[in-house]
Amino acid sequence: MTGADRPGEFELIARVFAPLAGEGAFGLVDDAAVLTPPPGEDLVLTKDAVVAGVHFFPDDPWDAVAQKALRVNLSDLAAKGARPLGYLLGLGLPDGWRTEDAEALGRGLALDQDAYGLRLLGGDTVRSPERLMLSVTVFGAVPAGRMARRGGATPRDVIVVTGTIGDAALGLKLRLDAGLSGRLGLADADRDHLLDRYLLPRPRSAVAGAVLAHAGGAMDVSDGLVGDLAKMAAASGVAIRLDASRVPLSDAARAAIAADPALLRTALGGGDDYEIAVALDEDDCDAFVDACRDAGVAATPIGRAEAGRGVTVVGTDGAVMDLGAGSYAHF
Amino acid sequence: MTGADRPGEFELIARVFAPLAGEGAFGLVDDAAVLTPPPGEDLVLTKDAVVAGVHFFPDDPWDAVAQKALRVNLSDLAAKGARPLGYLLGLGLPDGWRTEDAEALGRGLALDQDAYGLRLLGGDTVRSPERLMLSVTVFGAVPAGRMARRGGATPRDVIVVTGTIGDAALGLKLRLDAGLSGRLGLADADRDHLLDRYLLPRPRSAVAGAVLAHAGGAMDVSDGLVGDLAKMAAASGVAIRLDASRVPLSDAARAAIAADPALLRTALGGGDDYEIAVALDEDDCDAFVDACRDAGVAATPIGRAEAGRGVTVVGTDGAVMDLGAGSYAHF
Repeated sequence: MTGADRPGEFELIARVFAPLAGEGAFGLVDDAAVLTPPPGEDLVLTKDAVVAGVHFFPDDPWDAVAQKALRVNLSDLAAKGARPLGYLLGLGLPDGWRTEDAEALGRGLALDQDAYGLRLLGGDTVRSPERLMLSVTVFGAVPAGRMARRGGATPRDVIVVTGTIGDAALGLKLRLDAGLSGRLGLADADRDHLLDRYLLPRPRSAVAGAVLAHAGGAMDVSDGLVGDLAKMAAASGVAIRLDASRVPLSDAARAAIAADPALLRTALGGGDDYEIAVALDEDDCDAFVDACRDAGVAATPIGRAEAGRGVTVVGTDGAVMDLGAGSYAHF
Repeated sequence: MTGADRPGEFELIARVFAPLAGEGAFGLVDDAAVLTPPPGEDLVLTKDAVVAGVHFFPDDPWDAVAQKALRVNLSDLAAKGARPLGYLLGLGLPDGWRTEDAEALGRGLALDQDAYGLRLLGGDTVRSPERLMLSVTVFGAVPAGRMARRGGATPRDVIVVTGTIGDAALGLKLRLDAGLSGRLGLADADRDHLLDRYLLPRPRSAVAGAVLAHAGGAMDVSDGLVGDLAKMAAASGVAIRLDASRVPLSDAARAAIAADPALLRTALGGGDDYEIAVALDEDDCDAFVDACRDAGVAATPIGRAEAGRGVTVVGTDGAVMDLGAGSYAHF
């Protein structure tokens, strides 16, 4: 399968990855990298892998795959109030990979390094015969001891979420069922919006400072809003009451749900939102929403923490909805 | 394929991995971990992935696979003079994985956490349908600005290598060819020694302090001695002259090579040694060898750096050997 014109492992590293390497990476010609947080700051570490056929479609363009691999990690950093510093890339290349795909992957990484302000520190390239796989470790920094925690919600806190919920889960449904958009009567622009939100997460890095300044508890919403709020509730030792009618929806998601109201469950329980949910004191709520707006991101109060356990979802009719597990698990 | 008795993703994390989590991991119930190097120290980062059928055999026991995944990274840290702090585990579980395998994996990690003094900081567990895959990021610490560099060799330096070379490459040959041991007339103990060196690397963490104190240039030997020295030579802008007759061999490797002299090339060019090669001033050589011996590790001068480029291997007969590329590449 090795084309004569395809670079070998070390040539690939030299040609595609070394130009992306920054301070501490030693041009990718050493065994290890060096990274030291600025004085008075902690390093924040996060590691998420994406696998072809599991987290993205095998025919997705490799630049988008590279961006998704970085962005799912950047979303975790943003939710912790951390600013990005750098990353390590573990790359599993499938047999039969093409030079132009590897170059596209490098272009995707380069774009997002610029967009989010981080540098390549190192990594490892291996064979992964059947499937493209990217295992990314991202490093960020927060003032010492200040990382926003998932378990910081307290009773009476307001629950606020950034952006809109459900677009990516609806986009995945459209991707898996080519006729669905037509049956729902979606406009092309709405269909494309939902598909794009699945393909390319938009991590809310711009609001990391607002999270740090105001949030009591915070997490990224990636496995489904309801299930993720259940994790926040469990980590915090509180209950959360979610008002479904207040969950922010894009026009496209609203159109899809208007055509098929059952899709509200997809929006609330599906994954891949890469938004941020925070719990904060009512007195901090306006300041947080304002700070997010100043950063170009909408933020919407959607519920309350209270004494107790678990998540209760109150539907648009005022009745409690049963959404089942409501969180994505791999197995 | 999901057995009724098999834990789900979050239960697996809670049951097998959370008990391994240390300071900064928040019990694996947050989006990210926190790590801050001790005052005056840099973090050293390394990331190596291992894939079933590529880096280990699909029927290797999962405790050994977990240990291999940690140890190939610990070897990089040791070569940089760094002491281990912690790690992130990216785990790709194949369809049909069994509970007892996951538990064995946890036991292997626990053993090596104790043996090498590091803690689990976090990670990610995903489906990897065809193959078990572990992508590990390991963190260590060195005094600020002191990480031992691959590119630090200078002309007239002595090249010293720890332990013995070629055991794992010969072990891999034996593993792939069940009849080979018999044809070579190897004693069972010699055969088992070579097989074990392939299955389980022995990273030279004990000599990290000696590397830091004495080495001008240092790297781990993992892709084959000759090819790895070529990388050190290139990174340092020197040539390296390797005396094959001085390369340290185990009794088992010596027996194999005595039976088939062509296997010397396997020993010198094969991979998976996980020894450390250093370049140091002649005046530092005895102190380094002594410090290694005090740490329980043999260290042997095997050649010299000199002005020029590339690696020259002088054979036992005094003639220059041609070993080809002499370094493992994935493609």
